[in-house]
Amino acid sequence: MDRAFQRTQILTNHLLRSSPPSRLSSNACLSYSPPELSEDNAFDVEEMRKLIDGHNVEERDWLFGLMSRSGLFNPRVRGGKVFVSPDYNQSTEQQKEMTWKRIEYLLGRGAFKRWLTEKGEEIEMRRFAGFEVLSIYDHSLFTKLGAHIFLWGGAIEFLGTKHHHEKWLRDSENYLIKGCFAMTELGHGSNVRGVETVTTYDSSTGEFVMNTPCESAQKYWIGGAANHATHTIVFSQLHINGTNQGVHAFIVQIRDADGNICPNIRIADCGHKIGLNGVDNGRIWFDNVRVPRENLLNSVADVSPDGRYLSSIENSDQRFAAFMAPLTVGRVYIACSSVYQSKVALAIAIRYALTRRAFSLKPNEPEVLLLDYPSHQRRLIPLVARIYAMSFAANYLKMLYVKRTPRSNKTIHVVSSSFKATFTWNNMQILQECREACGGQGLKTENRVGHLKGEYDVQSTFEGDNNILMQRVSKALFGEYMEAQKRNKAFKGLGLEHMNEPCPVIPSLLNSTTLRCSRFQMDALCLRERDLLNRFVADVSKCKAEGKSTQQAFLMCYQLAEDLGRAFSDRTIFQTFIEAEATLPTGSLKDVLGTLRSLYALTCIEDVSYLRYGYLSVDNGANVRREITKICSELRPHALALVTSFGIPDAFLSPLAFNWIEANSWSSV
Amino acid sequence: MDRAFQRTQILTNHLLRSSPPSRLSSNACLSYSPPELSEDNAFDVEEMRKLIDGHNVEERDWLFGLMSRSGLFNPRVRGGKVFVSPDYNQSTEQQKEMTWKRIEYLLGRGAFKRWLTEKGEEIEMRRFAGFEVLSIYDHSLFTKLGAHIFLWGGAIEFLGTKHHHEKWLRDSENYLIKGCFAMTELGHGSNVRGVETVTTYDSSTGEFVMNTPCESAQKYWIGGAANHATHTIVFSQLHINGTNQGVHAFIVQIRDADGNICPNIRIADCGHKIGLNGVDNGRIWFDNVRVPRENLLNSVADVSPDGRYLSSIENSDQRFAAFMAPLTVGRVYIACSSVYQSKVALAIAIRYALTRRAFSLKPNEPEVLLLDYPSHQRRLIPLVARIYAMSFAANYLKMLYVKRTPRSNKTIHVVSSSFKATFTWNNMQILQECREACGGQGLKTENRVGHLKGEYDVQSTFEGDNNILMQRVSKALFGEYMEAQKRNKAFKGLGLEHMNEPCPVIPSLLNSTTLRCSRFQMDALCLRERDLLNRFVADVSKCKAEGKSTQQAFLMCYQLAEDLGRAFSDRTIFQTFIEAEATLPTGSLKDVLGTLRSLYALTCIEDVSYLRYGYLSVDNGANVRREITKICSELRPHALALVTSFGIPDAFLSPLAFNWIEANSWSSV
Repeated sequence: MDRAFQRTQILTNHLLRSSPPSRLSSNACLSYSPPELSEDNAFDVEEMRKLIDGHNVEERDWLFGLMSRSGLFNPRVRGGKVFVSPDYNQSTEQQKEMTWKRIEYLLGRGAFKRWLTEKGEEIEMRRFAGFEVLSIYDHSLFTKLGAHIFLWGGAIEFLGTKHHHEKWLRDSENYLIKGCFAMTELGHGSNVRGVETVTTYDSSTGEFVMNTPCESAQKYWIGGAANHATHTIVFSQLHINGTNQGVHAFIVQIRDADGNICPNIRIADCGHKIGLNGVDNGRIWFDNVRVPRENLLNSVADVSPDGRYLSSIENSDQRFAAFMAPLTVGRVYIACSSVYQSKVALAIAIRYALTRRAFSLKPNEPEVLLLDYPSHQRRLIPLVARIYAMSFAANYLKMLYVKRTPRSNKTIHVVSSSFKATFTWNNMQILQECREACGGQGLKTENRVGHLKGEYDVQSTFEGDNNILMQRVSKALFGEYMEAQKRNKAFKGLGLEHMNEPCPVIPSLLNSTTLRCSRFQMDALCLRERDLLNRFVADVSKCKAEGKSTQQAFLMCYQLAEDLGRAFSDRTIFQTFIEAEATLPTGSLKDVLGTLRSLYALTCIEDVSYLRYGYLSVDNGANVRREITKICSELRPHALALVTSFGIPDAFLSPLAFNWIEANSWSSV
Repeated sequence: MDRAFQRTQILTNHLLRSSPPSRLSSNACLSYSPPELSEDNAFDVEEMRKLIDGHNVEERDWLFGLMSRSGLFNPRVRGGKVFVSPDYNQSTEQQKEMTWKRIEYLLGRGAFKRWLTEKGEEIEMRRFAGFEVLSIYDHSLFTKLGAHIFLWGGAIEFLGTKHHHEKWLRDSENYLIKGCFAMTELGHGSNVRGVETVTTYDSSTGEFVMNTPCESAQKYWIGGAANHATHTIVFSQLHINGTNQGVHAFIVQIRDADGNICPNIRIADCGHKIGLNGVDNGRIWFDNVRVPRENLLNSVADVSPDGRYLSSIENSDQRFAAFMAPLTVGRVYIACSSVYQSKVALAIAIRYALTRRAFSLKPNEPEVLLLDYPSHQRRLIPLVARIYAMSFAANYLKMLYVKRTPRSNKTIHVVSSSFKATFTWNNMQILQECREACGGQGLKTENRVGHLKGEYDVQSTFEGDNNILMQRVSKALFGEYMEAQKRNKAFKGLGLEHMNEPCPVIPSLLNSTTLRCSRFQMDALCLRERDLLNRFVADVSKCKAEGKSTQQAFLMCYQLAEDLGRAFSDRTIFQTFIEAEATLPTGSLKDVLGTLRSLYALTCIEDVSYLRYGYLSVDNGANVRREITKICSELRPHALALVTSFGIPDAFLSPLAFNWIEANSWSSV
């Protein structure tokens, strides 16, 4: 073929936008080899998936299938496979409409059936599974649905009474009513008791009158408010006869059935965000809005027709705590779904590391697979162990929640706060590590790993700022300590029973056998928690003895509070790992889980706090570090099977997890 | 005003989209108070700014002014002030066109005058200042301009010879030619020596013939290639008479002056990214592309008209190293500008923390300012110290670069690698901390803090993956050690002269006076670097004695390499702080800088490595931590002045840094 002809032909092809004659040799220099060809499964990945998913596996697969079969979920073929993921190059307005269309589609297929109208463990677990699955398609889908189901629906369920349940829940489940949850204001986020919205009662008409008295009182970040919601729960100070009875929750209509904003309501959008642009977060102002008396959610307090304030809980602190119940549900959902999101990122990063090579050790040798670098193993494999640990912990938290009793409320509050903070921090750390481990490819939106960071960043501050939640955990542990001391009773609950035993002793020289023993691991975790709780109580008491208030004392001791919160969280998570392992018969599944459990425990024990407070000597610290490296290389052959067991369908991973060379080929342009 | 009338009026106003009658009381519940009203400047902020900017302050302000006066920079009034920042709700195609229009505007105003046609310290420093300023408007602007100026232009300057300079640089400065830099391929990023593009020489026509032999060889991430560039530098294997002479750089035209893609070139976009969507990153395939012989950048090697390979450097490793020079320039720019980006985020977070309150310590007391919480001080104030330290270090690096000599090349390579990695990691950590410290407001794109994360995330992997750069730093230190040992000579260069002195001794009990003494601080930093270098050499030697190759030995010792890289970086940065401080006369500026220097040093010494390797006892570790807390509270009154000294004009911060209540008011909707 002479050159002039060839040039003409290439040019013609360019103009026709078809493929030029391939100049690529048939033996590509680099070829993609699926990791399945080189890696073995030493255990049954289906069994492993059942164990870590814990419940409703078929339900999950049904939902995955629903999404991947619909054009609304933006399926695209890359490298011969179909992937679903939103088009994030759309404007915020387009993304919001797509989120809503996806909800309508899922609603039409019965995905939310019985979610608000049925009670009991079975439906609640099904709902958890549903949210976990939906969350990994897109955080906007999860969040917009969550605002409607677990914030709006949860508020009616927990704060309302029978007539509210009857009037609102069925229509909400069917989306005849679209709810949102107006708690946060511009001026008050974490400090809900400080909200400035004011509601009075007009006995002449039997209505409440609600006002936004100043700009800082505008409701802010209200998911669903900007475009779609017809109703909202408003958290407002309730003034009765000149007395502020504190924060109460009201149902307020904000749009009519045709979507027109109601009189005396003003609504504005929150603007472009670094993620979640598929959620219509809005701001709301109330101008003498009239609210029917029966729209007060009256499970703990009511106002009589003639305007008397009636409450079943005298103590205003306890009353306020009761109003926070929907947030607890929210935290359970957020914590559990964040583990699922981490799975997506790590499955992609591990699969890529099993197919991408870089640098040869010697000239003319093949380049080395990323996951065969000890440093790359050290980056990613401990994260596999952490995800397994969090999966068991999430299943424990869900069971704790669905089997709730009045007596277990405190435990649920403390554990959900600590897990929400720990899991979402871990999620961000895992996403960042995975993005960097994928190099530049981690920055392409279609590869998901990097994009998820912007989407999920909100998790560390919504439904309670993580730092504040962890402070509350430490305050709760402080309370347990004082209670046990005051009544001279043993610790009971929150897993603190180990405080009643003699203090564990760490051997002066830790060898491999000891380091892998679950008893030692638990001892080490309990030792830290016990010592930090003792120190925290001592330091707070010392501050108080110097004349500080309890609140001030807590603020001064924030470093111990942070370390203690993490110690509680790590130990609680570890306990669920031990329990999951104990349910298994001897065999390959139990073997690999035991190794993962050791890796998880040792990475907790590698934390700086073990050296900082002197629980580990320098030599033992080095032994721990060395053992971690060793376990990483032992788990290397299981890496593929361990992430396959996450059970995420291929379509919900990304092109980078499969044939990324073909996905990038000219023929795909 | 009766209710029916009022409702009608509000409704009418809604329909007219004008403001309703204000229901807001004139005494807003929360009011915004500018931090300037409550905070004092204990030192001259203008003087401080000059010190940390170090050079070209007027030039910087001129450029800031150029941008804030043009409608192309998307000015918007929020809370009574003008802010400039791109509209990130635009599609990627719109963002790319806006980036290009902004470059055209700046070009027309003479912003890049002499940037490519003049040599010498003065113009190089001016160019550094320019890039720092442009980078904080938008990372896309920085990156697209950088690909043209310091990658394309730098390659011609460093790799080309006189006739290349004469032919290309003036037209490039005027943007008659738009250049890009095609080094990375789909299959090879960090490992540039492995690129698969192949170029042969056809002596019958006196042309090179360039091919993309397989899909993994497609050029990837090439900034400027997808839409605008007319020319590119291509890194390709050069095969001469069947011998591969290794990677060489060629100038290749990819578009004609009208923007049409040239024959035998195929180009595709890289798709939507998590940031930098204003840069047209593209992919390029070459199909028997004919390249004039004189387009080989021939500073180190050439091909004669009759096809003989001629090189002034025999050793192919050294030849390859010479080709990497443009990347070194890139790393200096990236490192220095990342410090400026951190300043934006921290100035916003500190200003917000001085105006936002949350929780009262006692009922009916005013809520507490965020920055008055000890925990909030501990989050943000050490970052102020780190930014000051990095500013001095950046100025040192720039001077090192502009005063370069053949002898200083190694130092520039090692210092720029270590600073690029350290500063960009720090930048991401600072952005994340600031976003969380701003709570939900950190997620609004217009507030910048959170958005910058997605934009700058790329820094940790482009122009050299940070982990790989740090490994190279440690390898270079290893080389220095072996060199000194082999020749039995003293250490000289890279700041390693302290290795020739007796090993410093850390006092057994560290009190406040010692902890704040710069001599102790330097000793502690040198001690760690010395010990880690000794350990690294010992461990690598041990691996080699066990039969491993040098490369394998380095891979096995990655943990020590990481810790050593950081130790080198921290010590080198600290040294520049000491030197900056030494230039000042006694007075308030020197006082506050001394305190910042101690804070910076102690946060380095707080690093886990000091406990891990036993340089600090548990008690001394606790003393260090306590002293940090103390210094944070001492610096709290200076927080505003310290971030004002960053010299970032208000328009380049964000609404959250000023009257965020008014910026969110209904009247602004």
